[in-house]
Amino acid sequence: MTTYDALMSYQRETEALAQVAGRLGWDQETMMPRGAGPQRAEEMAAMEGVLHARRIAPEVGEWLAAIDEAALDDVGRAQVRHIRRSHERAVKVPARLSAEIARVTSRSQGIWAEARAENDFAAFAPVLAEVVALKREEGAALAAEGDVYDAMLQDYEPGMTGAALDDLFGALRPRLVALREAVLGKPEPAGVSGSFDEALQMKLSRRIAQVFGYDMKRGRVDKAVHPFSSGAGLDVRITTRTSAEDPFNCLYSTIHEVGHASYEQGIDPAYLLTPLGSGVSMGVHESQSRIYENQLGRSRAFTGWLFDEMRGVFGDIGLTDAEAFYAAVNRVQKGYIRTESDEVQYNLHILLRTDLERALLGREFEVEHLEEAWNTRFLADFGYAVDKASNGVLQDVHWSLGLFGYFPTYTLGNVYAGCLAAAMRRAVPDVDAALSRGDTGPATHWLRQSLQSHGGLREPRDTIAEACGTAPSEGPLLDYLDEKFGALYDL
Amino acid sequence: MTTYDALMSYQRETEALAQVAGRLGWDQETMMPRGAGPQRAEEMAAMEGVLHARRIAPEVGEWLAAIDEAALDDVGRAQVRHIRRSHERAVKVPARLSAEIARVTSRSQGIWAEARAENDFAAFAPVLAEVVALKREEGAALAAEGDVYDAMLQDYEPGMTGAALDDLFGALRPRLVALREAVLGKPEPAGVSGSFDEALQMKLSRRIAQVFGYDMKRGRVDKAVHPFSSGAGLDVRITTRTSAEDPFNCLYSTIHEVGHASYEQGIDPAYLLTPLGSGVSMGVHESQSRIYENQLGRSRAFTGWLFDEMRGVFGDIGLTDAEAFYAAVNRVQKGYIRTESDEVQYNLHILLRTDLERALLGREFEVEHLEEAWNTRFLADFGYAVDKASNGVLQDVHWSLGLFGYFPTYTLGNVYAGCLAAAMRRAVPDVDAALSRGDTGPATHWLRQSLQSHGGLREPRDTIAEACGTAPSEGPLLDYLDEKFGALYDL
Repeated sequence: MTTYDALMSYQRETEALAQVAGRLGWDQETMMPRGAGPQRAEEMAAMEGVLHARRIAPEVGEWLAAIDEAALDDVGRAQVRHIRRSHERAVKVPARLSAEIARVTSRSQGIWAEARAENDFAAFAPVLAEVVALKREEGAALAAEGDVYDAMLQDYEPGMTGAALDDLFGALRPRLVALREAVLGKPEPAGVSGSFDEALQMKLSRRIAQVFGYDMKRGRVDKAVHPFSSGAGLDVRITTRTSAEDPFNCLYSTIHEVGHASYEQGIDPAYLLTPLGSGVSMGVHESQSRIYENQLGRSRAFTGWLFDEMRGVFGDIGLTDAEAFYAAVNRVQKGYIRTESDEVQYNLHILLRTDLERALLGREFEVEHLEEAWNTRFLADFGYAVDKASNGVLQDVHWSLGLFGYFPTYTLGNVYAGCLAAAMRRAVPDVDAALSRGDTGPATHWLRQSLQSHGGLREPRDTIAEACGTAPSEGPLLDYLDEKFGALYDL
Repeated sequence: MTTYDALMSYQRETEALAQVAGRLGWDQETMMPRGAGPQRAEEMAAMEGVLHARRIAPEVGEWLAAIDEAALDDVGRAQVRHIRRSHERAVKVPARLSAEIARVTSRSQGIWAEARAENDFAAFAPVLAEVVALKREEGAALAAEGDVYDAMLQDYEPGMTGAALDDLFGALRPRLVALREAVLGKPEPAGVSGSFDEALQMKLSRRIAQVFGYDMKRGRVDKAVHPFSSGAGLDVRITTRTSAEDPFNCLYSTIHEVGHASYEQGIDPAYLLTPLGSGVSMGVHESQSRIYENQLGRSRAFTGWLFDEMRGVFGDIGLTDAEAFYAAVNRVQKGYIRTESDEVQYNLHILLRTDLERALLGREFEVEHLEEAWNTRFLADFGYAVDKASNGVLQDVHWSLGLFGYFPTYTLGNVYAGCLAAAMRRAVPDVDAALSRGDTGPATHWLRQSLQSHGGLREPRDTIAEACGTAPSEGPLLDYLDEKFGALYDL
């Protein structure tokens, strides 16, 4: 057995164990009895301990040192790159610090949930300050002499830097703000109305998941409080949620998660249970969920088909024709909540969070001033004041979990989706004709061939560039938004 | 930290990981997408590798060697006894072999299910031959100079031997055969008839699970091909199955699994995630499922209450009064299937399987002749021929999972349940009065106090002896069967 084979054999087991740990998370959100929490915490901690021990294992370091990368092909070099990154990250963080972060964030998540329910940021601030202190320490360990936020970004989007985000966000913000102001100055389209049985919503969601190519033989759809996609390879599960008044919540959460899941299901089976067998980054992952949800799922062509489907399932939905339905699906409204936001305003929510978390980690202010900073920035960007903390600084779970550096990947995903949609329309002329028949095949086939099948083979930015034929930039997304919402709102 | 504390801290993590592995098994039978099998096999093998590595860990051996058992209390000594047994078993089996068994049995289970559906033993035989070869190899490693089957019995019933089974089965068989012949010579009571909606069966089953004390906050009920109970501590799940024609299949499978689950849920919480925190053996486990299912659930008193419940749910069930219902629930019929068998004939099914698996492991014949051996023995014991493989050698999942030595614990459980029921009726005079009101409390409270709460504190045989005040024997079971079925069939 070569050094590479030994490394990959070990890694394959690690990947299998990571899948097991991930499925525990799925179970916790979907199936776990509600009294099992304390035991589950022990189980998760034990799995995390096993995975950490494998990542820092001395034999992994020895194999990585001994391996002759020049003798490997592209796939082999990419596998080694992923394993090396994971190993080097794990050994940089003292075990004591990792354990402390796990302990504090498991506590802080519950405190956050209570504080959000009570609209009481002061109740959350002390434990968040502990989280921030620990993450600064971890960031310093990861960054060595470099930038702490840059180091944190690598956990979610390898290759990304704060400086690159500055450039990108600087280009996005003025045009997004201008578009938002123009759209909100126009009359608001009507929404759906009617009776939306939740079991029928789930039935339609499962059907639409399959319309988008989700393979139910290698997945399943369940309900959860927060929609998510989970798992890789032959077992990729999604969740969605239902709201009796708003069927789009369920349908578009499903299509979004199907985008994530299709990426995982679409990866070359030769990469099963290897580092290449999972989506390469959070940003590229989000590009798939977004293009499924928005550029395909909220397109005029597809919504024309969906309108008929929904009337077939629910009867009268309060909208008379496909144009009104298309306007309702793409309605832009004032609001506070990121996850309920539309294509126009979503990225403004992300820019706000990214700037705040960078400043916080960079010690430009402390946690005690975070709510004030949020509210000031929100007013500046959105033009109206936050009314309560659950609509503001307390709305997202991420910081309570220590996930600093995660937020910008949502906007990267949108930017990448814009690039991919433009390239796809150049390469596949019949996308809309097919979508108008409820056939996503030409679009999803192109995505599978151009991007999904390659998994973690290339770095995130190269993954997009290779699929599009050009380096990613914000232009296609902004042009798409201007054109779509310009037409919808008669700008 | 003392040596004992270090050992227990390590063991607690091992127990948590064992719970994770067990839950993967639950998921596979209830939730897993059907195309995920090959990946799941890798996941199970990786978990088995982790658990095996922990069981054989040199530090465990060192702690066990260094520990001063005389300084421990009963609980501490019992914990050490379990850990020592597990460690010594694990070091005897090469890691390569235990991983291979996990991998092959994960695959063979699916092949068995397909072969059963097709009534095609030849489709199952090759993978079963692989399983048998691996288990023979494992048995030889465990037994050293001793008997292979005795060594395998220790996995399910520590302290049990083939010789003790010979004595027990020798005493059971003539009286069971005589009772069976006497009963089958009498007129057969009527069964239920009617329409039994499967969703209503599940709803009633969940209600009856709670009537028997199953705590849904720490569990859940799902459907599976083969009913089972899974997990320990705060997360103990059961499955059942439904048949449109036969509501008793669902109801009594549920009560049976609730017996298993109640044992796990009833263990002293101080033992959570320790070796004492699980049922002590399969035989003692089966004593709980059997006493719930038969001595309580099929008693005249409880069936009187259940008759009214079933008529309330399903309307007319084709039986006019509680006596006819009691006779129907306890009807003895010719049949092929162990899990559908009655109290009179059940143990004859077990004797057949035990003898066949002992002979197969002992190389008295090979897998290719197993179906023929089964059919010959069945004809001899039951007096009529097996009509198809799914009614014969393919009916049970156990061998596909490599569970050789497991079957006799079913009969041990029946024998133990006989002892416990007799002791309970001596200790708790109002059992029947309560059962006739659908109140299992006095019975289940006595079982919890006398047996369940102690978990793995005592050895299996001592667990029964302590609860009953006398050593276990087959007498109480045989007397109970003679009395019950003598009265029912007017013998």
